[in-house]
Order: sequence, then C-alpha cells, then structure tokens
Amino acid sequence: MTETRLTPVLLCGGSGTRLWPLSRKSYPKQFVPLVGEETLFQASARRLAGAGEGLSFAPPVVLTNSDFRFIVTEQLAAAGIDPGAILIEPEGRNTAPAILAAALHLAAIDPEAIMLVAPSDHVIPDAAAFRAAVARGIPAVEAGDMVTFGIAPSHAETAYGYLELTGPPDDIGTPVKLSRFVEKPDAGRASEMVDAGTFLWNAGIFLMRAADMIAACKAHAPGLIGPVEAALARARPDLGFLRLDPVAWAGADTISIDYAVMEKADNLSVVPFRAGWSDLGGWDAVWRETGPDGDGVVTSAGATAIDCTDTLLRSESDGLEVVGLGLDGIMAVAMPDAVLVADMSRAQDVKLAVAALTAKGKAQAAAFPKHHRPWGWFESLVSGERFQVKRILVHPGASLSLQSHFHRSEHWIVVEGTAKVTLDDTVRLVTENESVYIPLGSVHRMENPGKVPMVLIEVQTGAYVGEDDIVRYEDVYARG
Amino acid sequence: MTETRLTPVLLCGGSGTRLWPLSRKSYPKQFVPLVGEETLFQASARRLAGAGEGLSFAPPVVLTNSDFRFIVTEQLAAAGIDPGAILIEPEGRNTAPAILAAALHLAAIDPEAIMLVAPSDHVIPDAAAFRAAVARGIPAVEAGDMVTFGIAPSHAETAYGYLELTGPPDDIGTPVKLSRFVEKPDAGRASEMVDAGTFLWNAGIFLMRAADMIAACKAHAPGLIGPVEAALARARPDLGFLRLDPVAWAGADTISIDYAVMEKADNLSVVPFRAGWSDLGGWDAVWRETGPDGDGVVTSAGATAIDCTDTLLRSESDGLEVVGLGLDGIMAVAMPDAVLVADMSRAQDVKLAVAALTAKGKAQAAAFPKHHRPWGWFESLVSGERFQVKRILVHPGASLSLQSHFHRSEHWIVVEGTAKVTLDDTVRLVTENESVYIPLGSVHRMENPGKVPMVLIEVQTGAYVGEDDIVRYEDVYARG
Repeated sequence: MTETRLTPVLLCGGSGTRLWPLSRKSYPKQFVPLVGEETLFQASARRLAGAGEGLSFAPPVVLTNSDFRFIVTEQLAAAGIDPGAILIEPEGRNTAPAILAAALHLAAIDPEAIMLVAPSDHVIPDAAAFRAAVARGIPAVEAGDMVTFGIAPSHAETAYGYLELTGPPDDIGTPVKLSRFVEKPDAGRASEMVDAGTFLWNAGIFLMRAADMIAACKAHAPGLIGPVEAALARARPDLGFLRLDPVAWAGADTISIDYAVMEKADNLSVVPFRAGWSDLGGWDAVWRETGPDGDGVVTSAGATAIDCTDTLLRSESDGLEVVGLGLDGIMAVAMPDAVLVADMSRAQDVKLAVAALTAKGKAQAAAFPKHHRPWGWFESLVSGERFQVKRILVHPGASLSLQSHFHRSEHWIVVEGTAKVTLDDTVRLVTENESVYIPLGSVHRMENPGKVPMVLIEVQTGAYVGEDDIVRYEDVYARG
Repeated sequence: MTETRLTPVLLCGGSGTRLWPLSRKSYPKQFVPLVGEETLFQASARRLAGAGEGLSFAPPVVLTNSDFRFIVTEQLAAAGIDPGAILIEPEGRNTAPAILAAALHLAAIDPEAIMLVAPSDHVIPDAAAFRAAVARGIPAVEAGDMVTFGIAPSHAETAYGYLELTGPPDDIGTPVKLSRFVEKPDAGRASEMVDAGTFLWNAGIFLMRAADMIAACKAHAPGLIGPVEAALARARPDLGFLRLDPVAWAGADTISIDYAVMEKADNLSVVPFRAGWSDLGGWDAVWRETGPDGDGVVTSAGATAIDCTDTLLRSESDGLEVVGLGLDGIMAVAMPDAVLVADMSRAQDVKLAVAALTAKGKAQAAAFPKHHRPWGWFESLVSGERFQVKRILVHPGASLSLQSHFHRSEHWIVVEGTAKVTLDDTVRLVTENESVYIPLGSVHRMENPGKVPMVLIEVQTGAYVGEDDIVRYEDVYARG
C-alpha cells in the first residue's frame, strides 16, 4: 500500500470568548497551552504532520486573520513545522469561504490534492488513533465522497450538532454513509439520540479531494465561487503570507460549510471516532479534559484546593497563587489582570462576563496583557500619570520599526541578551546590564542581532505614554 | 459639666489570617482600608480623637510591634493624628501585658489618667454614638469600676464571647453591673443567650482609670506586674518609639486581659451599645459590613457580579477585574499575587489557605506584595533569573540607608519627584526622566529631599538579586 499524501487545512481565525480570561479577542484559545505544554494550534499542526498510518502530510495550509498572522508563524516555528501557505482572511466570514479558498488554492497546485480540514482549537489526545481514523476515510474519498468525522458521544451534550448515520458504526470505525445533519438539540432529544446508537457528534473535521469540495460548492453554494476565486486571484503576497483580496472577499456570504454545502450534499460518509475528542467549548470542558481527581478537582500549578469538589482552579501566571476553600461546582481562572469565578453550570455564559467588561470599557474584555508583535512581545508592568514600565522581548534576528515619539522619552535597560540600538545617526550594541536613553523626538530602532532572545526593560516618561504616539519610518513587517 | 479627658490605648500588634489575602502577617488587616476609605487603624484612631459628647481625647498610646512601627507612624501622619506614645512590644504576649504596660505608662504621667482600651481592627460606623456610650460609662469609672462595652447581639454568633448582665439593659444604654463572662458558645447556647436578653457580645473594649487597671492586676495577676514594670523601666527610646525591654517582657505571661483580670474582678460594669459594631473577624463579616444589595451581593470597584446572590467579590488592585458568574454564597478576593475563592460558610477556615501556602513555601502566605519601610515602600514588578524590576516610593524628607551590594548592579530611573543620590564620593540630584547607574560594589544612598513623594524604577541585574544582598553603612532608622 502506497502512502496517501494529504494537506492539512488548519482553521485558526476564530476568537471565542467562552474561555475568557485566558482566551481573548487579541489572543484566542487556539494559541494558548490550555491542555498540556503545547498550544492547541501547535498540537493540531503536529497531529497532522509527518507520516504514519499509511498517510503522509504535506505542509499545512493555515487560514487565519491579519491580527494573528505573526502568532501563527511564531508558534509553527516553535513547533518546528513549516507552513505550506498562510492565507489571511481580510475578515471572518465563517467556514465556507475559508474552506473553499483553501480548496481552490490546493487544486490549482495539484488537481488531485486531498485536504483534511480541521479546526485548530480542539483536543484529540490520541494523535495516532486520529490518523488511523483519517486513513480509514481514504477509500471513501477515493470513491468521490466527502468524509466527516463523528465522535462517539460520551453524554447527552446539547452544545454540539449531531450526525445521523444510515446504520450503526462497527467496532473498527469503518465509514458509514451519512443520513443527515442534526442541529444542536435540547436535552431530551440529545438523550434520545445518544440512546439510539446511530448518532455521533459533528466535530467539524472534513476530509475530501479539493476538487470535490469545489464541485460541491458549485452545486450547492454557487454564489460563493466567484467572490472566493477573485479574492484568491487578486491575493497579495506579503512576507510569506497570502492576503486574500478584501474587496472580493467582502462579496462572499458569511456562512458555515455545514449550511452552505454539507447539509445539501449526498456524497457524504462518516468515520466514527471513539478515542477522545473535545472542542474545549467552555471551562467545564477544560475541567473534563484535564483529568479531575477522585473529588472532581482540577488544579493548575499555582492553585490549591481545600475541601473542594467538582471544581476547576487555574492560575495562569507565575507568582499568582489561587486558593479554593470549600467549593463545589465552581471554576476559577486567575490572571494578573482578570479573574473569573463562575458556577460550573454557567460555563456557556462566560461571554456575559466579556460583555459586561466591554460595556464598562475595560481593556481586559478583549486585550491580552502580553501584546504579541512580529518581532516578539511586550507587556506593561506598571503605569502612572506620566510614566509606564514595559518588559519587551525581541526574538533573535528580529527588529522593531525605525520610529520616534512626540510625547515620551525612553530608558532602555537590557537584562537578557544583546540589543543593537540605532539612535539618530549612531548604532551601538547594548548588552546585559547596560542602558541607553532615547530622548523625545529622536529616531530610534531596537534590534536583536544575537542568537538568544533579548529582554529589556523600557521606562517611558512623558505627558502621554499611549501606544499610538509613534511615527514609523521603516518597518520590515510592513506595518502602517 | 466639665469635659472628661481620656487617653485612647490602641492595640495594633496583632496579625490575623482570616482576611487573607488582603490581611497578611507582614501587613495585617488593621492597616488596610477594608471598609471605607481609611484603614481600620486610622478609623479607630479618629473615632477616639478630638472632643465631643462631654469627652476630650488625649493623643493615643499605641501598642504595636517592631515590624509595624513605621506603618503606624505613616498612617497616623496621613490621618493627621499625633501619637502620645508608641510602645513597641518585643513580641506579642496577648492583651494583658500590653494593657498593663499602657496603664503603668499613663499612671506614671498622671495618677488619675483614664484609659479607653480598644482594638484597632474593629468597625464602628457611628463614632458619635460610640463616644456617647463611652461618656455613659464615665460615672461608673469615677465610682471605681472597670467598664466593658457590650454589643447588642444581632444573631446567635458562636465566634464571640458573651457578657451576662445582672439585669436587662434599658433603652438608653445605662451601665449595668456585669454578672459574668461567658466563653464562645455553641450554636444552641448562643441562641438561648440571644433570646434571654441579658447577654451581650464582648467587644474587648475597656474603660477604666489606669490606676484601677494596675490595682486589678495586682489583685488578680500579680505575676505580671514585675516583668511589665521592668520592661517599661528599661524601655529604650528609639526615634519616637518606646521599645519595651525584651528580656523583662519575656518574663510576662502570655495571657488575655479577660483571663488574667476581668473574669476575676468584681468591680465591672457593662455599657450596652446598639449602634453597630463588627470585629471583621472574617470575609463574611466584611460582606455584612459593606452593605449587601437586595441580592446579597457586595462588589468592590473592579468587581462585577452577574446573576450572583449572597456573594462578596473584591478586587484589591487597580487594573485587576474580577467577574463572578452565577455564584451563590461565594466570596472571592483577588490581588495581583494571590486569589482566595471560598464558600461563605467557610469564612472562619481561611487560615487553612494560609497554612496550605505556608506548607508549600509560598511567600504569599505571609508577605504583602508591597513592602513597607520607614522611608516609604517598594514592590517587585517582575523578576527573572538575573534581574528584578522594582517600583520604589520614598516619602518627602526620607532616606534609604547608605549601602552596597556584592552581586548586583542597579539602574535607577526617576519617574516622579526628585532624588538626591549619593554614589561613592559624589552627590547629585536626579529628577523625573533622569537615570543613574549604580555599579556593583559601589556605596550608594537614595534620598528624597523634596516636598512630594519620589518614585523611581529600579532595574537590578546580577547573579543574585535577593533582598539580603545588602551591606548597610549608615541608617537613620537604626536598622541592622
């Protein structure tokens, strides 16, 4: 048996709020190490990389948005995975336009390309079992079917859609023809479906030839083809990203692949999958996936539970201790700038917390305390009326823009690594325990010419220390 | 009617753990603004200052310990109250030795001195009503009685001792002779006492002539007299504090005034008090005293409750947002370095949280993130393997010790006010937006010569950045 070559299509443009405060609009859950050491995105990419089970994976096509593009490249690099392409969606228009764009992109390169479309924020602990399930779907794909993956339900979940099969799955997990999609049910209906044995959870993972996906779109959602083809045809390459054309993209309907195509197609098979899956759609799911002990308690490093039951306690920061005392059915997630304490039964309502903070104009509603940039990241340590202190990390080889400020001077003290500092007409190296002063108005740039990350402490003083007091002269990342 | 002059004796050497994480061993609850804008200590001092209700208050005698002495002076200064004397207990030996020391100190100055002994961590919202109650006790004191204050019980509390009266209190709150002290009861006994109408809570507040207190000690706890007299006779004046002699002090029994004296004396009267009192003996008491809304919810600035009932949510830091969702009977108190989430019924068990963190060797168990020093305070903003960043505030006129370090260099950037910096043989002024570099090994001192607080950011780098890498050459605060 020869290896079948697949191209993973990783969807990571979304930004949910149900895992606030750890998942925020500026840095959503797929980029966070929610379960285990790697981020969900990294684990998703790794699951679909390399070869095995009769499969070999081509470098992934990643669909994301402009805000996340450098997080994507940074996290793939850290995981040692080269992307095949990174397509930038000008705006989120749900899954159908994104998947069609990936299909058109792949079919143009290889008319026989097979794509495995997967969200990048799901947990599948047993990667080998998942790849084996993918391999079981290949014959159906070769027969012209589009394959979805159906998760054996562990409970009567009301937060997922279901897949009704034409017959019960066997023990091996052989593909079964799909009878129909079922929308998110109420509790009673969910219970009936679980008992029936012919319903699986819809995991939103798809396997098909790119050409079959395009054909299905032409048949069932023909209006999508023109705008998405145009967005791809007029796409602008930018530092290794492919920016889909925003004008054309705006002409595509905002619609999910299920509504647009899958629910109408009749060439659908389902590969049953039993080896464990979660979309981590709430803190209750994180609690479940991170191994509650005999009392139902999950604690992170930095969290202590005393006389608690069925409780999740997470500290998301070094140096932050969380203690739960006498709690039952509570989840508490603490960060230095935001703490959520909720009844476990309200996991799906965490968006209300985000809405409340948004209404109060609080930055914590959407912004992560650590701000990721193409060159590294920064965080504000403390700020006062006329000063702000930041920690800044610059990746090896990276460079900030050449810039100046109207309202602030800056003191830079290097505490790790070596910086190359341009200040007006001079360039000098500044290393650990050395400092440099950037007077108001001077044109300056910070680079890391070395092989290890460079960390510096920046103390800004001035009448105004906001991020928008910046004039950029040159920027290797082509930012405005 | 002439004014009666009283001297408040404020006890503020204690450090409970039931209000962790806001109250910690290094900075206990009396020094924290738990209810309202002022700290409990400041409110206690203000309640017993000035004149009114036929009383005039002399400057207070404060009993505290060495660690808290500069917090006491700083908070009294901020409240505009001059202390009469600040007695430093070499170690805590419960209330009897402390009160006897104050009595001996006062009687030596004025044999007729009347003292009002009060803990500094209680809440009494209606100061005028309290002073009126004190005034009602004066005739009993003049008749030679020792007066205690009895709080009309609002519920069958099991955490307090009770005072049994010889008869029911009248509506005016006229003093009643005490029948006996009752230890903390169980719930059933507490309920019986509340129903009986002749039992009041023992608030631990006492009014008597200093000479009568000394006489009572001589009669009922004669062993205390010698050690406490000696500790006072050999006390060492130190920068406005009076340090009781530690050797003599160690000879005094560790015993409460109730056990040592009050339960044995027969010249006791009780002034009933109905106008509101709490010892804030737990977060449930804080919840009760800070005005729950119609749903029983209390939120601080920076806290948001969504669908909560009977819940306390407190953020103790600017820039830290706490959100509670669907909670019932929960209390959550969040600080940047520690978060407590507890069932309200477990308020008396918060000490278990402190014990658990102590067992884990966590600094948060006992140390406050902001470290108070005689010259101001500092806090660590971030630390790494080989660096630490601190914010340091120096009071106007204050000065750090002349010092050097073996393992670290320091960069100082002034962000508010002006610093006078001594560096080896040079002295210079450093003002906002200026920096100075302190090389490893150099002898240096930081002072604030100005009229406004001076704030600087200190970036330390070196192989070891612990607080104990310090050689002190001169210190105006006489520290080792």
